[in-house]
Amino acid sequence: MELPQTVAPRFEPRDSDWERKVRESFAAQKVMATLGATLGKVAPGYCEISLPCRDDLTQQHGFIQAGIVSSIADNAGGYAGFSLMPVDASVLAVEFKINFLAPADGDYLLAVGQVLKPGKTLFITRAEVYAFREGKAPVHCAAMQQTLMNVSGK
Amino acid sequence: MELPQTVAPRFEPRDSDWERKVRESFAAQKVMATLGATLGKVAPGYCEISLPCRDDLTQQHGFIQAGIVSSIADNAGGYAGFSLMPVDASVLAVEFKINFLAPADGDYLLAVGQVLKPGKTLFITRAEVYAFREGKAPVHCAAMQQTLMNVSGK
Amino acid sequence: MELPQTVAPRFEPRDSDWERKVRESFAAQKVMATLGATLGKVAPGYCEISLPCRDDLTQQHGFIQAGIVSSIADNAGGYAGFSLMPVDASVLAVEFKINFLAPADGDYLLAVGQVLKPGKTLFITRAEVYAFREGKAPVHCAAMQQTLMNVSGK
Amino acid sequence: MELPQTVAPRFEPRDSDWERKVRESFAAQKVMATLGATLGKVAPGYCEISLPCRDDLTQQHGFIQAGIVSSIADNAGGYAGFSLMPVDASVLAVEFKINFLAPADGDYLLAVGQVLKPGKTLFITRAEVYAFREGKAPVHCAAMQQTLMNVSGK
Repeated sequence: MELPQTVAPRFEPRDSDWERKVRESFAAQKVMATLGATLGKVAPGYCEISLPCRDDLTQQHGFIQAGIVSSIADNAGGYAGFSLMPVDASVLAVEFKINFLAPADGDYLLAVGQVLKPGKTLFITRAEVYAFREGKAPVHCAAMQQTLMNVSGK
Repeated sequence: MELPQTVAPRFEPRDSDWERKVRESFAAQKVMATLGATLGKVAPGYCEISLPCRDDLTQQHGFIQAGIVSSIADNAGGYAGFSLMPVDASVLAVEFKINFLAPADGDYLLAVGQVLKPGKTLFITRAEVYAFREGKAPVHCAAMQQTLMNVSGK
Repeated sequence: MELPQTVAPRFEPRDSDWERKVRESFAAQKVMATLGATLGKVAPGYCEISLPCRDDLTQQHGFIQAGIVSSIADNAGGYAGFSLMPVDASVLAVEFKINFLAPADGDYLLAVGQVLKPGKTLFITRAEVYAFREGKAPVHCAAMQQTLMNVSGK
Repeated sequence: MELPQTVAPRFEPRDSDWERKVRESFAAQKVMATLGATLGKVAPGYCEISLPCRDDLTQQHGFIQAGIVSSIADNAGGYAGFSLMPVDASVLAVEFKINFLAPADGDYLLAVGQVLKPGKTLFITRAEVYAFREGKAPVHCAAMQQTLMNVSGK
């Protein structure tokens, strides 16, 4: 199934070992296993995370709860940023803002994070969350804008 | 243990049955049981939700992951708003913005949601998340600002 | 000079007279004349506003102040949304979030607003602000995400 | 006229000369004079800015335009933060999010900024904007949450 609005990655990583670091950090997030989220495609400044729409993650209307949608959006943006950070960097979410555009409902969600601006200390990212259901077009269900901090040596 | 910066509720509910509705809606959110979150004190325009700091909800540094913090903040704001909505209202999170002020780490988190402005269609709220650890002062670990919508008849 | 990251408009207007409405509403904003801002290209779901970098709009470092950058970003998003609203609609900014990516400094700023999601009541938009200086590549200096409301009959 | 919801300042300044620095920086913002804004009460972690509701700052409905409201809110938060920064600090707005709660209309607006969390590099603040009209209660017309950065040596 074709992903809408994907932009080709265009950043140079500062650490040649960036992909191993991203995958190891994701694997160390116990919450991702608890939610059933998996790391997909990664590229410098780009990260995809998918989440099956499990019934035990729903709110009162049967849709995936806003915080859970935020959880994969925050991580997609966070690892998009982390992929561009130097050796020994550590990433921290300073803040994010997320709009919910449509019910997070379907077979699975896909969060796509991309770096808008890599800095020395701060990284600005955006993430889109799409809901996929077999036989239907993907639905853009959330849009996030985020500030990350490189907290080296922490 | 004393909660910092609590403001006394000051709103008149439009539905005398508001507390039952809030508690039933919270109970219908399967994700809250999955995360181990519980609904605490509620008042018109005010809502507390607590979450034990379980190891399986942590990110790579061992703190509660940002999306999980957002999950209880979003619901604390959401139910603070829902408590003031008329009969037959249904609440939807339009968007929120959250800053992470300190690591979400301790025995449990407490999210405190309060209504800033109740409207006809839109409700604006704020939520604070505090981390509690026995023998220590609570730490203000997240601050949220949120827009809710009353989607009656949905 | 080539604008980076422009996305082709892709929305159908609900009011065939949308462009006249947008231009008349912009002209009725006295603040735009005060700041020296002008309305540029408009299309369904798309709006450009430019602002010369006047010295009397600067903050303490000599850059255009954040609120003034926000002023054209808010209007670019707002008129992108308004262009898609039905006859007799009136547009209101519910909220926005804006990140400042680089100093707003140069010959002029260009704010480019685009609709992410047109709804019945709420419209979600994004705007980018670029700083242009002769002989240099444009600099992406701000990124905004916004919620608008159609307040018909107001 | 009594200001609603004011919280007493509770921070220790790191630079004993903080008030002079805040007032000099404000005076160096040419945009504040252009808009007619004036600096009012300041205290460590606290700042008030007022703005007469001039006709030439209005949008199409005759209210003060959202970006202008943001301009004083951003500065009220910014100087609240700057008041707590060390000697030789320089303050930069990383981002803010603002909700518009009521029309910004009256005799004058008052923006009240307060620090939520002073950090080493980042400062988190909130600002409220109230609209005052003689003989009426102040109206809470905007609520902002902001991230500032101490960019020393810039």
